[in-house]
Amino acid sequence: MPSRPRRKATSTLNEFDLIRVLQRRYRSDGPGVLRGIGDDAAVIASDRRRSHLFTTDLLSEGIHFDLATATFADVGFRGATANLSDIAAMGGTPEYILVCLAMPQSASKVQIEQMYRGLMTACRPHGVRLIGGDISASAAGWFLNITLVGSAPARDVLLRSGSKPGDDLYVTGTLGDSRAGLQLLQDSPRRSRPSVSSRHRRLLVARHLRPTARIREGCWLARGRWATSAIDISDGLSGDLRHLCEASQVGVDLDLSMLPISPACRDYALGLKQDAAMLALAGGEDYELLFTVPARQSARFEQATRAHRIRVTRIGRMLPRGRGLHIIMPSGRRQPLPCISYEHFRYQR
Amino acid sequence: MPSRPRRKATSTLNEFDLIRVLQRRYRSDGPGVLRGIGDDAAVIASDRRRSHLFTTDLLSEGIHFDLATATFADVGFRGATANLSDIAAMGGTPEYILVCLAMPQSASKVQIEQMYRGLMTACRPHGVRLIGGDISASAAGWFLNITLVGSAPARDVLLRSGSKPGDDLYVTGTLGDSRAGLQLLQDSPRRSRPSVSSRHRRLLVARHLRPTARIREGCWLARGRWATSAIDISDGLSGDLRHLCEASQVGVDLDLSMLPISPACRDYALGLKQDAAMLALAGGEDYELLFTVPARQSARFEQATRAHRIRVTRIGRMLPRGRGLHIIMPSGRRQPLPCISYEHFRYQR
Repeated sequence: MPSRPRRKATSTLNEFDLIRVLQRRYRSDGPGVLRGIGDDAAVIASDRRRSHLFTTDLLSEGIHFDLATATFADVGFRGATANLSDIAAMGGTPEYILVCLAMPQSASKVQIEQMYRGLMTACRPHGVRLIGGDISASAAGWFLNITLVGSAPARDVLLRSGSKPGDDLYVTGTLGDSRAGLQLLQDSPRRSRPSVSSRHRRLLVARHLRPTARIREGCWLARGRWATSAIDISDGLSGDLRHLCEASQVGVDLDLSMLPISPACRDYALGLKQDAAMLALAGGEDYELLFTVPARQSARFEQATRAHRIRVTRIGRMLPRGRGLHIIMPSGRRQPLPCISYEHFRYQR
Repeated sequence: MPSRPRRKATSTLNEFDLIRVLQRRYRSDGPGVLRGIGDDAAVIASDRRRSHLFTTDLLSEGIHFDLATATFADVGFRGATANLSDIAAMGGTPEYILVCLAMPQSASKVQIEQMYRGLMTACRPHGVRLIGGDISASAAGWFLNITLVGSAPARDVLLRSGSKPGDDLYVTGTLGDSRAGLQLLQDSPRRSRPSVSSRHRRLLVARHLRPTARIREGCWLARGRWATSAIDISDGLSGDLRHLCEASQVGVDLDLSMLPISPACRDYALGLKQDAAMLALAGGEDYELLFTVPARQSARFEQATRAHRIRVTRIGRMLPRGRGLHIIMPSGRRQPLPCISYEHFRYQR
């Protein structure tokens, strides 16, 4: 999701846990629907060999993106990446995109074209084709809805629910960069800037505005049948790890000292006297893949990642459900996994 | 689309004809994509026998629906019907729905549940299953995005582009009811009401708030290979007939005296001293199917519709493109087809 000011929805609605209500009432797993509500994307059986994947997002100005810190092209790029990342988390190949845009009276042709340019810049490297959508007016503000259609070999689809106690927990790339980039963008120029080099600043802001969907990594994990479960990190490691554990009905020990932090993020955190690991934990919008691999395969798996130049880091170990969800502090102290990521009423991821 | 106050987008954007720009720039017909932007739904080859259909709509409060005249359940029902109708116009069977909702801070759990109830009430008779989406906050107002996935036998998909000069033009059901129903809803109770009976009023309002998608009719037309082209009437007969003629590169003579008008609509128009045919022409949101049948098959076709209890009316004749688009007045006078339907920036229908 594009740079969101992280406004929460009303507390009343949080209490009711709407997603679970809808999931219970309109649950649609069954013939044809291999996975409905409750994963990164829906999985529909196409034939014996191939499954279709569907994911959709509605992004609102002032909630999911801020046109003061992102261009229209950035918003389009990030919106497309968020959905590409959902397909990556299922081990799928993205194929088609449908885009709906609702815009205020003040909208210009150039702004709309920039939004589409950003969307298609993110999609083109993956061969994703625009096949439909609509453009209409909104009473106030910009709204962007993206639906992405992909596919995957039926037997290789990655789900959140396949992890077993004893699996190792891995993540691709580095964590926290996007959040650091957002904070840099939101800093008023008048405020004293953190002591981050201009090169690192550029890197962090780029990681926020133009993130990478891990399509290649997701496909490789699925085809090689390495991963027992996977999810993409859109809401933050803390929240998405929780989703993975709930779906797989397992516990976890997450080792904070193992989290992959880029030099730029470390530099930024140092300047603010913040803990980079906490930034990584709460971050969100990293669009890295979080996944599990059976421990007995870990050595062979890590060797294969090096051969294929895929950057992964082992960051924890899955446990029986009863052991709960914990982080291991650098001091060795074990404490409950905090709830510090952005919660929204998404019922698909 | 749900009861829309029919506010137009800015004139600046009308001039640029955005849809054509995007269609040209991101045109995606080609391998796998049998029909991209430019029909009621996108058509993707699944295998030799079956095609997938995709359609999506973003509906904005104050633009596409008005919560003063429609309940949340009505908005959901109408939103689903608009998309079901797109699938009907392609001769397809609707299968899966994805729903994104963005809602204001004031939203309640009951309102959200009602919206979903309306959506699923429209979907359930067709066996359509909810497979994903999300629920998030909006800075102001309600926004509903629906993506509908369907399928059709590959060789039977109905397109807008297949009509030939000499074909007869047909429409299902009756026209103008929805518009009359909307006008009745928008009438202030203080204003003197048109002399329409309460039974007719109920019928017209129901046709507006709870329209019927012509799924059965579309499937039957496609399977029997009766129709050479088809479109659903969402923007109004005048506008949608224009779209069909453009896609098929044909002209038309539309016979106003033949338009199927319900007794309720005729009653309503009489009370207002309006011409019911003009109401039918400008209407919109009727969700009837407009389609063409080769003239040499018309007699056999009409006989078959009676046997299958499918209500259709012949309302015109397709002509070579150079003959232009005309209406034949009841007096016999021939005049250019007026542009009186709602124009929005939809690039899929």
